[in-house]
Amino acid sequence: MTTIDDLPIRDDLRGAKPYGAPQLDVPVQLNTNENPYPPPPGLIDDLAEAVRKAAARLNRYPDRDAVELRKDLADYLGHGLTARQVWAANGSNEIIQQVLQVFGGPGRSAMGFEPSYSMHPIIARVTGTRWIKGSREEDFGIDPDAAVKAIEEHRPDVVFLTSPNNPTGTALPLEVVERILQAAPGMVVVDEAYAEFAREGTPSALTLLPGNPRLIVTRTMSKAFAMAGTRLGYLAADPAVIDALLLVRLPYHLSSLTQAAARVALAHRDELLGTVNALRAERDATVAWLRERGLQVADSDANFVLFGKFQDRHAVWEALLERGVLIRETGPDGWLRVTIGTAEEMAAFRAALEAVLEGVLR
Amino acid sequence: MTTIDDLPIRDDLRGAKPYGAPQLDVPVQLNTNENPYPPPPGLIDDLAEAVRKAAARLNRYPDRDAVELRKDLADYLGHGLTARQVWAANGSNEIIQQVLQVFGGPGRSAMGFEPSYSMHPIIARVTGTRWIKGSREEDFGIDPDAAVKAIEEHRPDVVFLTSPNNPTGTALPLEVVERILQAAPGMVVVDEAYAEFAREGTPSALTLLPGNPRLIVTRTMSKAFAMAGTRLGYLAADPAVIDALLLVRLPYHLSSLTQAAARVALAHRDELLGTVNALRAERDATVAWLRERGLQVADSDANFVLFGKFQDRHAVWEALLERGVLIRETGPDGWLRVTIGTAEEMAAFRAALEAVLEGVLR
Repeated sequence: MTTIDDLPIRDDLRGAKPYGAPQLDVPVQLNTNENPYPPPPGLIDDLAEAVRKAAARLNRYPDRDAVELRKDLADYLGHGLTARQVWAANGSNEIIQQVLQVFGGPGRSAMGFEPSYSMHPIIARVTGTRWIKGSREEDFGIDPDAAVKAIEEHRPDVVFLTSPNNPTGTALPLEVVERILQAAPGMVVVDEAYAEFAREGTPSALTLLPGNPRLIVTRTMSKAFAMAGTRLGYLAADPAVIDALLLVRLPYHLSSLTQAAARVALAHRDELLGTVNALRAERDATVAWLRERGLQVADSDANFVLFGKFQDRHAVWEALLERGVLIRETGPDGWLRVTIGTAEEMAAFRAALEAVLEGVLR
Repeated sequence: MTTIDDLPIRDDLRGAKPYGAPQLDVPVQLNTNENPYPPPPGLIDDLAEAVRKAAARLNRYPDRDAVELRKDLADYLGHGLTARQVWAANGSNEIIQQVLQVFGGPGRSAMGFEPSYSMHPIIARVTGTRWIKGSREEDFGIDPDAAVKAIEEHRPDVVFLTSPNNPTGTALPLEVVERILQAAPGMVVVDEAYAEFAREGTPSALTLLPGNPRLIVTRTMSKAFAMAGTRLGYLAADPAVIDALLLVRLPYHLSSLTQAAARVALAHRDELLGTVNALRAERDATVAWLRERGLQVADSDANFVLFGKFQDRHAVWEALLERGVLIRETGPDGWLRVTIGTAEEMAAFRAALEAVLEGVLR
C-alpha cells in the first residue's frame, strides 16, 4: 500500500499532522467555540426560500465579487465602511490564506504573539511564509514595548494580532495595536473573530482603519452569528487591499448558496446577536465559578474560557470526556479551554469538572 | 488615495491583473462554459428541503472530511472507487490549489501544455510554484515524444494535462497520459472538468488510477452537472494523496450547504446529465456549421468550440457583443471560443456571426 511517505510531498510537510480538533460524538460539545444556539425558525424559512431562489440560477457562476453581500457586511460593521472596504471568503481561514498569498509567501515572514490562533502559523507554512513566533506576557496580554522591539528586530512582512485572543480570550487595548502599526514595516492583521463577545467598552480595531492602509481587520460569521456551517469569513481594510486580494483569490471562490445564506443571516442579525448577551453572561459566570474553585482563569472577552493549571491536563480532559463533556486540550501546557454553551451545557460541564476535581487529578 | 502600488504586495504580483472573464449582462451568455439548463424543479425542491434540514445545525461546523459527499462522488465516478480515493473542495480551482500546495510550492515547478486552462499557471504563481510552459501541436494535441522530452529536460514536480482541453476542446488518448506518467518524476494531474461531454469512446484517466499513486484526476460539478453556482470540484487519486491533501486543506473548507447541495445534485444526476446529450448534439452541429462557413474549428470533446482564425478577433468578439452575444476572447491569437448554449442561444449566435462575417472583418 502506498503511504504519504511514498509521495513527493514538499519536504517541509514531511511528518506533519492534519490540523483539527477531534470530531467526537458526545452529548456536550464545548470544544470548537461554536455558538450553541441553532438558527431561529424564521431564519431557516428565509434561508430555504433564498436558496430556492438562488437555485434557479445555480447553473451559472456566482457573482465573482460578491458585491451585494459585501454591502450588507459593510452595513453591519458600521464605522462608515462601504463594500469597497470589505472582502469575504470561505471562512476567515481563507481570508488569512489570501492575505498571506499577497503579502507573505516565499522569502517573506509573518509574526504572531503566542499562545494564539494555531491556524496562523499553519496557513503561513502552507503559503510558504516563514513564521516568527513572538510571545505574550504572563497574563496573555501583549507588552507593546516588547512587541515593538521584536518587530524591529525581525521586520516581519505581516503581523497577526488576535483580539480577543484564541485560546486565551484576551482583548488588546487599541494603544497596543496602534504602537504595533507604527512599528510594523508591513501589514498588520487584527483577527477579531470573537469581537462581538467582548465586554462593554472594548473597542474594535475597525476604528483605526481611516488613514491606515496597512491595517486589516478580519471577522467571521461562525461565532456570534452562529453560522459556523456556512463558512463565511470577511475583512475590512483599505480598498487598495481588496484590489490586492483580487490578484490571488480563486475566481468564483464564494458560492451562490454561501452568498445567499450569509445575507439572510445578516438580515436576521438582531435575533442572532441576541444570543451573544446570554453567552457573555454565561461566560462571566463560568469565570467566577472556576475562580471560586481556586483555579487560574484568564480574563475572557470571547465565547470560551481558558483555565488551569493542571499537572496533567490530558487526564482532566479525558475524565471530562468520559463524563460526556468534550472540551479542548489547547493553549499553554497545563491549561484547558472550554467553549461557552447553553446554561444546561455549562451546568453539565460544572458537574463533570466538580467530580473530576474531587479526584486527585489536580 | 492609496493604490495597490503603495502596498507591500509580493514583487511577483506587481502589475498583475485579476483573472476573470468580463461579467456583462447580455441576452446570450456563451462565455464561461456554463451549462445553459437551470436545475429542474424537482432538484430545487429537494435542495430547499436539504438546506432547511442542514440549517438547523448551521451553528455547528460542517463535517471537516465531507465523508458522505465523498461516498456519493465515488459512487458516481464508478471504476470501483471509494470515498478514501475521492476529495472535494470549493471548485476544482481549490482542488488544484491544494494539489500545488502539497506537491508544488517554493523551489518546485509545474508544467502544462499550452494553450490550456489559464488558471493552472495562475494558481501555480499564487502557490509560489515555478511554471514551465510546454506546448501543444498545431492540432492542439500533445505529441507524446515531444512531451516526454520536455518533461525529461525540465523535471517538473507536477504535470498538468487537461482533457478535454480548455479552450481547445481536445481530448487526449490514454496512451499519451500513460507515456507522460512513466516519464514524469512527480505528480501528474489530468484535469477532466469537461469529461462528461467527450464523444463516445473517449476513455477517462480514471481507468489508469490502479497502480498509479502519482496520478490525480480532477473533475467538477460546474459543467455537466450544471452546478457552477455551487462551487464543487473534486478529485480521484490514491488514498495516500488524500492523506497528503489533509495537511494543507483549510479545516472546514467545505460548508454544510455546499455538501448538502452537491449531494442533492448527485441524487438527481440522471436528469442533470440528460442535458449533456443535448449539448453534445448542439456542439457537433455548431462545429459542422462553422466549418461550412470555411472557418477553422478545433475538434471538440467539451461544451465549447474554438474557432477562427480572425485577423482581428477582438473586432469579431465586439461585433458579436453588440448583437447581444457574449463569447470569450481566449486561446491562441486569432481564435475565439463559444460555449454551447441552448438551441435558441446557438441560433442567436449563428445569426450574429453570420451578420458579422458578412462584414469584412474576417
